[in-house]
Amino acid sequence: MSTNPISNDLFLRACRREAVERTPVWFMRQAGRYLPEYRAVREKVDFLTLCKTPELAARVTVQPVEIIGVDAAIVFSDILVLPEAMGMTLFVHEGKGGPHFAEPVRSRSAIDRLVLPDPAAKLRFVTDALRTSKRELQNRVPLIGFSGAPWTLAAYMVEGRGSKDFRHIKGLIYDSPGDAHVLLEKLSQAVGDYLLAQIDAGADAIQIFDTWGGVLGKSEFEEFSLRHITSVVSRVRGRHVPIIVFCKDCSQSLEPIASCGADVVSLDWKSDIGEARAAVGHRVALQGNLDPVVLFGSKESVERGVRRVLEKFGHGNGHIFNLGHGILPDTPVANVRTFVEAVKTLSVVYHREPAGVMRHA
Amino acid sequence: MSTNPISNDLFLRACRREAVERTPVWFMRQAGRYLPEYRAVREKVDFLTLCKTPELAARVTVQPVEIIGVDAAIVFSDILVLPEAMGMTLFVHEGKGGPHFAEPVRSRSAIDRLVLPDPAAKLRFVTDALRTSKRELQNRVPLIGFSGAPWTLAAYMVEGRGSKDFRHIKGLIYDSPGDAHVLLEKLSQAVGDYLLAQIDAGADAIQIFDTWGGVLGKSEFEEFSLRHITSVVSRVRGRHVPIIVFCKDCSQSLEPIASCGADVVSLDWKSDIGEARAAVGHRVALQGNLDPVVLFGSKESVERGVRRVLEKFGHGNGHIFNLGHGILPDTPVANVRTFVEAVKTLSVVYHREPAGVMRHA
Repeated sequence: MSTNPISNDLFLRACRREAVERTPVWFMRQAGRYLPEYRAVREKVDFLTLCKTPELAARVTVQPVEIIGVDAAIVFSDILVLPEAMGMTLFVHEGKGGPHFAEPVRSRSAIDRLVLPDPAAKLRFVTDALRTSKRELQNRVPLIGFSGAPWTLAAYMVEGRGSKDFRHIKGLIYDSPGDAHVLLEKLSQAVGDYLLAQIDAGADAIQIFDTWGGVLGKSEFEEFSLRHITSVVSRVRGRHVPIIVFCKDCSQSLEPIASCGADVVSLDWKSDIGEARAAVGHRVALQGNLDPVVLFGSKESVERGVRRVLEKFGHGNGHIFNLGHGILPDTPVANVRTFVEAVKTLSVVYHREPAGVMRHA
Repeated sequence: MSTNPISNDLFLRACRREAVERTPVWFMRQAGRYLPEYRAVREKVDFLTLCKTPELAARVTVQPVEIIGVDAAIVFSDILVLPEAMGMTLFVHEGKGGPHFAEPVRSRSAIDRLVLPDPAAKLRFVTDALRTSKRELQNRVPLIGFSGAPWTLAAYMVEGRGSKDFRHIKGLIYDSPGDAHVLLEKLSQAVGDYLLAQIDAGADAIQIFDTWGGVLGKSEFEEFSLRHITSVVSRVRGRHVPIIVFCKDCSQSLEPIASCGADVVSLDWKSDIGEARAAVGHRVALQGNLDPVVLFGSKESVERGVRRVLEKFGHGNGHIFNLGHGILPDTPVANVRTFVEAVKTLSVVYHREPAGVMRHA
């Protein structure tokens, strides 16, 4: 959208595995509850109103850039606004068991009733939030748009809410795989449209969140989740904005994920980022992967955690520092600052040309 | 303990990767809530009283052998009776957020106060339940004893209960790894003593449950969980009863788990048992790994699920059929019967000498 260059484009260069002076850092749920400035906004409006009021959403989107100094912003929104735009009724009561849908999708006719929304109309509040954020960022850092993966959206839509055993969505794939694919293909279409609209509205990169891919067996993950992520990615990648894919708890499927066409694979904290790089780092950049719980420890612990991830990834390009999952709501802000500063400081040596033996050999 | 041979020893032979006529089957939490006969016993006593009353524990231990026809019994108990015997106060209110401890272990002095219990005295109800079960089984099928892994027990003891983010036990390993290892070494000693006492009381095999190993990063899993499992296994394996290790959500660490000295690696439903066999099947037998949620589907779905696991494992020995996690409480009994019968019937062909080409070559 913008024709002006972004002054800090470390994140975009790292996504493309180009040279950077230090490792860029941002983190999932960085616009959120751990920040008193976010809570001050949320005191006045409920969660969904915040999502749907572009100037407020933009304000909290920009907060972590200004307060914490991250190298990218991610638009404030929720993955469940897309199923809502497809015709479902969404309730969000924070702290009351999480978001849920009034009537879960439990039949073929319910699948058929879901509409393919025009994002420019039904999800205008998201594209407007992107436009406003983009304007307020003034090209300081790139802006990331996002969507849930088709599987993760389907899981919420069929279960009606988060689940311990995912018996309804699994019942659908085990008993009626054909219907499951009808739903997932409809969602792939909707997610593709949605991400393209976000790019049109100014997103400089996009991330696909597959929060629930990891509840499936390896083959089922590939058939019911990754196949549909791949179809979304192939629709979006022509726009030449970096695409990040985050499949939580799917480390055993790292190889096929790295082949889905995305530019960046985001790792949860359970993966070994060094082993992951050795396995697939020639194909994609890697994002991650500090355990968010490390941010509850001492300053030394946080720095040690950052150092360990940097060491594991090692020298060279193609690393975006992030947490292995969203930041936890009551994380101390001082530790968040320590975390971001530690990445900025400690990563520099990993981007200098290696000195010593090689050079003198 | 018993000198009489066990009439159905398919399970023990499969653990040793010896030839069997069909794949043996049992399943985690098979003595439990899905059975009306279990619920009839539980109506009269609370959960912990059931654990601590050997004749009742033995009754529910034997139930799935007689009602469902599984090929092994597992003693009815709970992994948290060991921390209780070490001095902690345990509360179990089923349905009220699960078991919890009155005072979680949150300091070095709390770790030091934990006692190493003499299982013959403090856990006599478990060894008595094993002896009574053994007698009532009349050598029809083998009897399995079990314990939580040191890491999983430590997680419960430090958190005080199950957790979403495990911030306290992770805080311990990130901030005070030395203290964490003191706790884990004490637990390894206690678990070893406990398992040896169970073998003395008649357990024909033992299983170590690492329910929470999967919340750790790969390196942390190896350092804080697997290292201590390995030390338990090396203490117990001299008794020549098969040792099964179940580390949930740890498929990325399959190789090191298969090298811990155990005879059998139990797989959760997310692993591909065919790939696992190709990777490590020359070292260990494999147990698993049908998704427990499949048992909520149609009869055809259950049979298809069983067939898929058998196909993936393929021809040959060293497979014990099980679910990929404990059976869910409200699973229909008819489906449980279908599941067990399907394994018994459909597995036969996988144990016949392969006919055809090879033989005539």
